[in-house]
Amino acid sequence: MSAGTTSTIAIIGLGSMGLGMAQSVLRAGHVVRGYDVTPAATAALATAGGVVGSSPADAAMSASIVAVVVVNSAQTETVLFGPAGIVPVMQSGSVIISCATMAPAVARALAARCAESGVLYLDAPMSGGAARAGSGELTFMASGTPEAFAAARPALDAMAGKVYELGDEAGIGASFKIVNQLLAGVHIAAACEAITFARKLGLDIAKVYEVITASAGNSWMFENRVPHILEGDYAPKSAVNIFTKDLGIVSDIGRAETFPLPIAASALQLFLMTAAAGMGRDDDASPARLIAQITGIDLPMRKDA
Amino acid sequence: MSAGTTSTIAIIGLGSMGLGMAQSVLRAGHVVRGYDVTPAATAALATAGGVVGSSPADAAMSASIVAVVVVNSAQTETVLFGPAGIVPVMQSGSVIISCATMAPAVARALAARCAESGVLYLDAPMSGGAARAGSGELTFMASGTPEAFAAARPALDAMAGKVYELGDEAGIGASFKIVNQLLAGVHIAAACEAITFARKLGLDIAKVYEVITASAGNSWMFENRVPHILEGDYAPKSAVNIFTKDLGIVSDIGRAETFPLPIAASALQLFLMTAAAGMGRDDDASPARLIAQITGIDLPMRKDA
Repeated sequence: MSAGTTSTIAIIGLGSMGLGMAQSVLRAGHVVRGYDVTPAATAALATAGGVVGSSPADAAMSASIVAVVVVNSAQTETVLFGPAGIVPVMQSGSVIISCATMAPAVARALAARCAESGVLYLDAPMSGGAARAGSGELTFMASGTPEAFAAARPALDAMAGKVYELGDEAGIGASFKIVNQLLAGVHIAAACEAITFARKLGLDIAKVYEVITASAGNSWMFENRVPHILEGDYAPKSAVNIFTKDLGIVSDIGRAETFPLPIAASALQLFLMTAAAGMGRDDDASPARLIAQITGIDLPMRKDA
Repeated sequence: MSAGTTSTIAIIGLGSMGLGMAQSVLRAGHVVRGYDVTPAATAALATAGGVVGSSPADAAMSASIVAVVVVNSAQTETVLFGPAGIVPVMQSGSVIISCATMAPAVARALAARCAESGVLYLDAPMSGGAARAGSGELTFMASGTPEAFAAARPALDAMAGKVYELGDEAGIGASFKIVNQLLAGVHIAAACEAITFARKLGLDIAKVYEVITASAGNSWMFENRVPHILEGDYAPKSAVNIFTKDLGIVSDIGRAETFPLPIAASALQLFLMTAAAGMGRDDDASPARLIAQITGIDLPMRKDA
C-alpha cells in the first residue's frame, strides 16, 4: 500500500492511548473503526469521526490493520481469540499491531496462533504517553516478519514518531519493552525514595529537583515524575497498577529463567505496598505519598486531591 | 579578593580529582601548594607547576584557601585536626573547601570545630569526574556562610563550571550530594541488572543501549556506564568501593533517622556482593560482570582486562 492511499484501520481498546492513536490515524486520512467495553470511550471515538463497532470482530471485519491497545496479555488474547474475537474474521495478509506490554513468550505464542489463520502479527509495544499518542509521535519497539511490518506501515506512519525495527520475529519487541519497564519502574521508585529522603534531611525539594536534573543522579523518570510530587498531584497520568503489572512480568520471567533481579524486586515491592495502601489507580509517583504517610514527612498536597 | 589577583591555594589530596583541580587553579594564575601521602601524586603536582608541602600543615600554612579532596569524612578529619593537620596553622578568615561526600551531621560538626579556630568552612561536595576537574568545569553542591563563599571564590571560579549555593550552613551541601549518590548508585545497579537481563533475553545489548537511551527507561548513569559494559572495560573510572561507601552513608542515615530506603538498600547489597567477589577497586559498572559470572551469560570482555 503506497503513501497517500486510504486504509481501513481498526483500534480495539480506546483508553487514553487508543483514542489518541485513533485521532492520529483519522488525521492521516484513514477510515477508523473501533471498539471498547466502555461506552464513554466509544462515544469519544464517534465524536472524533470514527466508526464504532458492536464487538471486536465487528470493528475488525473490514480492516486491513487492527491495533490492539489493551492493558495486558490476557485482554489481548481475549480480543484475538475470545468470544467475538478478531482473528477468525480477519482476512489473510491483514495484520495485528499488538501494543500491550507482555512476556516475550506470550507474544511469540500469540503470533504463532495468528499465523495458523494467515494473519500477520507485529509485536509492537509502545511508549510515549497519551499526549504523544494524540499527536502521532509514539515510539514503537517492534519486531515481526517483513510482511507484518509492510502491512502495518500505514498505521505506523500515522501513529509513530519513531519505529524501532528490532528483529524479524515476535517476542523481541516485547523483550525490549520489558527491559525498558524494568528501568522505568526502578527509576520511579528510586525517585520517590530519594525525594522523600531529601525532605527528611530538611531540604527544599524544588531545589533538589533543580540540582538533580542537572547532575549525574538524573533519570528520565525523575525528571518527568517528580513534578507530580512537587505539585502534590496524584491524578493518574500513568497508574501504580501499570508497574505492579509490568514489574510483575519482569519478576515472572526472572524466576522462570532463574535470573536474579534484586533491584527490580525491591521496586515491585514498593509499588505493591502503594497499591495495598489503596493507591493502585493513582499516579505512579504515589510511592512518594505512601513513604510520606509512613514516615510523617510533609509533602505538597493539592487541596482538591 | 577581586578577580585577577593571585591567591595561594592549597590542595590536600592529589588523586585524579585533586590533581585536576590543582591544574585548573594553576591555569587561573594562582600559586598552588599541595600534599598527598602518595609520592607519585606529589610528583605530578610538581610537574604541573605546584609546590609540594611536607605535610598537610606545611602545604596549608601560607594559603588563604585549602581544598580538601580526600575520600571520606575520616580522612577529612585527619587532614583538618590530626597530626600535622591544617586547622591549627590556618589564619583566621581563611577557608577550607571540603569536597568529600559525608554525612550532613559530620559536615556540621567539622564546620563547628573550624569556627572555634576562626577558620571558615565551605561544605562543597562535587561531581563531574577527573576530566572536568582538569578543565575547571566541576559542579559543586555547596553550603556555608556568606563569608565562607566569599573567601572560597577565587578557587571556585577556577575549578567550577557551576556552583550551587544551597544554604548558609554546612550540612546542606552534604545532604544534596547524598541524595544524588543514592540515585546515582541505584541507577548504576539498575543499569547493570537491566543490561544483563536483556542479554539473558537474547537481545543485542548495543541495540538495547541505543533504544533505552532514547526512551523513558534512560538515566544519566545508564547512558554513561553501559558503554563500559559494551566494551568489557572495567578499568576504574569510578570504583565500586565509592558506592559501597556512599550507599553505606545513605544506609547509616536511614537507620539513624528511622527512614526506610528499600531501593537504595538493594543497590548497596549488589555493590557489596561485587566488592566481596574481588571487584571493589574495579569500575562501578562491575555489578554487570558479577551478574554475568553468576548467571552464565556472555558479556563482552576486553582481552587485556
